[in-house]
Amino acid sequence: MSALRDHLRNGGPVSISSVLVVGTGLIGTSVALALREHDVTVYLADRDPGAVRLAREFGAGQEWPPAVPPAAPVDLAVIAVPPPFVADELLRLQRAGTARFYTDVASVKALPLRRAAELGCDLAGYAAGHPLAGSERSGPAAARADLFLGRPWAYCPTEETSADAVETVLGLIKLCGAEPVRVSADDHDEAVALISHAPHVTAAAVAARLADAPGVALGLAGQGVRDVTRIAASDPDLWTGILSGNALPVAEVLQAVADDLAAAAAALRRTADRGDEAMTDVVDLLKRGVAGRGRIPGKHGGPARTYTVVQVVIGDRPGELARLFQVAEETGVNIEDVRLEHAPGLPLGLAELSVQPESAATLAEALRAHGWDVPS
Amino acid sequence: MSALRDHLRNGGPVSISSVLVVGTGLIGTSVALALREHDVTVYLADRDPGAVRLAREFGAGQEWPPAVPPAAPVDLAVIAVPPPFVADELLRLQRAGTARFYTDVASVKALPLRRAAELGCDLAGYAAGHPLAGSERSGPAAARADLFLGRPWAYCPTEETSADAVETVLGLIKLCGAEPVRVSADDHDEAVALISHAPHVTAAAVAARLADAPGVALGLAGQGVRDVTRIAASDPDLWTGILSGNALPVAEVLQAVADDLAAAAAALRRTADRGDEAMTDVVDLLKRGVAGRGRIPGKHGGPARTYTVVQVVIGDRPGELARLFQVAEETGVNIEDVRLEHAPGLPLGLAELSVQPESAATLAEALRAHGWDVPS
Repeated sequence: MSALRDHLRNGGPVSISSVLVVGTGLIGTSVALALREHDVTVYLADRDPGAVRLAREFGAGQEWPPAVPPAAPVDLAVIAVPPPFVADELLRLQRAGTARFYTDVASVKALPLRRAAELGCDLAGYAAGHPLAGSERSGPAAARADLFLGRPWAYCPTEETSADAVETVLGLIKLCGAEPVRVSADDHDEAVALISHAPHVTAAAVAARLADAPGVALGLAGQGVRDVTRIAASDPDLWTGILSGNALPVAEVLQAVADDLAAAAAALRRTADRGDEAMTDVVDLLKRGVAGRGRIPGKHGGPARTYTVVQVVIGDRPGELARLFQVAEETGVNIEDVRLEHAPGLPLGLAELSVQPESAATLAEALRAHGWDVPS
Repeated sequence: MSALRDHLRNGGPVSISSVLVVGTGLIGTSVALALREHDVTVYLADRDPGAVRLAREFGAGQEWPPAVPPAAPVDLAVIAVPPPFVADELLRLQRAGTARFYTDVASVKALPLRRAAELGCDLAGYAAGHPLAGSERSGPAAARADLFLGRPWAYCPTEETSADAVETVLGLIKLCGAEPVRVSADDHDEAVALISHAPHVTAAAVAARLADAPGVALGLAGQGVRDVTRIAASDPDLWTGILSGNALPVAEVLQAVADDLAAAAAALRRTADRGDEAMTDVVDLLKRGVAGRGRIPGKHGGPARTYTVVQVVIGDRPGELARLFQVAEETGVNIEDVRLEHAPGLPLGLAELSVQPESAATLAEALRAHGWDVPS
């Protein structure tokens, strides 16, 4: 049953036996927990002693500096502080001779590298990184050893980075169960602007329209607007740091989105005057949207694949979903994904079960035979 | 088990015994199916004979005009055609004396009402409506009797609408199991611009940025951008009709979103020059986003309520979710919501189970006792 642990045990040969994690927030503590699964000696530091204490209580490692300082530098220091402070921390640690190699986990990459060069850090020993894993939650209490499992982890070697530093960060990525993605710092920053930072600000802009919206409008809200605005619930302070650290690439994407939306607004105003021939720009935008959406990879990193959705009417009683999955299992049908859609105002909802197309009829029949409403 | 049928049976007194549905797409056919559950006599018409045949095969009713025409007008005609054609269809039906009362289900309301007045329709007999239910799918094959169950159904009487017409549309809404929301046509159109139409275009604009994005960017995509862009996969033709029918309200919201995003882009460009004090506008936008997101009602139409999320590492093997729900049931814990997050590239994922806060520890303990990895 412990698939996580099995996976981590099979993680391959590892040359990392001691690590210092600087910054015991969600990401830093999760890295520490993943390393502890491999019995790596992990030291923890944070400018907030409470955060270190909490991470220690979760079994993430021991306090830095330890009572008996290690005889040699640790193998790797993982700098898990906000982007603007990465380079200063790197310089401080390198001056103290703390580690053989250094990496960071900041969600922007050009800024820390530029600052590190400006400060005169040893760039040969530093391989920058960024695990693409996060949560609406934050802090060490939200950390998990499996946070990075199967997730992309970007790493950004420069011409100065030594081969050993690269090997060491690759070892870290492997120990955390993530998938390494080699990319230049500039390409990385443009990529996360496109797939994370600008979508975040756009979701906030849609949600912001609802802050003063009439109550009747909120009462008509459906699943669409809930999905579009979900990430707008995240911590503004955390995101302010991320966005300011990747300011120009994010600005470029946001400007393009703003231009498209302003053009759509203008086309709609012309439509009100002149009729549907003015809609060409809007149609074009919708079609580009379908094309872009289709490029997002599906489950397991492969191309998006189409499952057939079997819908089942369910009540709000304990155990109803359990019985439903039980029937699926007995029928030998693997449910690839499940989505619950609740009927507002009623203790009823729809479960949408994604299955292989060839299994849909079998599952629907089995569920009906067990008394479920399966709309055809 | 048949919660849907129970609910529909308890739907209260109904004075609607015969209905003509004009337009057997997703919405029209779903209305017909819901009415058939109450043994209402349902007639079906569509300019596409194939759509009528399909709807009939699903048990949605009989062809219009029937071999033996009814002696009296039907109780209600439900006009389920695209917004630009509603008023013409209303005029045609009224001239033929087809029904005692008329309603429509178009997703915009001011346009059909204005056109109906211009054409000289009998406005006393027409109560406009709009069920807030839809799907990325379309056509009669996607129809379901329970499509409207617990969903809001806006109705928009004007000063001319007779009390009997209003009562009849309220009867229809009740038969379909939906929740009536009385709202003026203008307020309705502004509301759906805010909570449906503008979010749709914005999702398309974010997704459109990915159409030409480098492959490495797509490879770094996570759940956030997937959620933001989900509705961008919908049919552009269908949406072009909706948007052009609500052009000015949508244009107003899109312009406001575009202005916010352009201001954020400008602030980020200033930040790159001058540092974080230029971020004030961005911080403000993110905070307004949190406030707006918080106003979207939660499950069962009440205020959003906070469940505790229990995370479980799961494999991709048939039956694993079934066993998980089985354990929850045995423990007496009701799972309020479930979300599967797959680890790209690995046959592993996380199930996020939302439960009442007081049940979280019980469930986690039970799952661990059965050998699951439940990160703490």
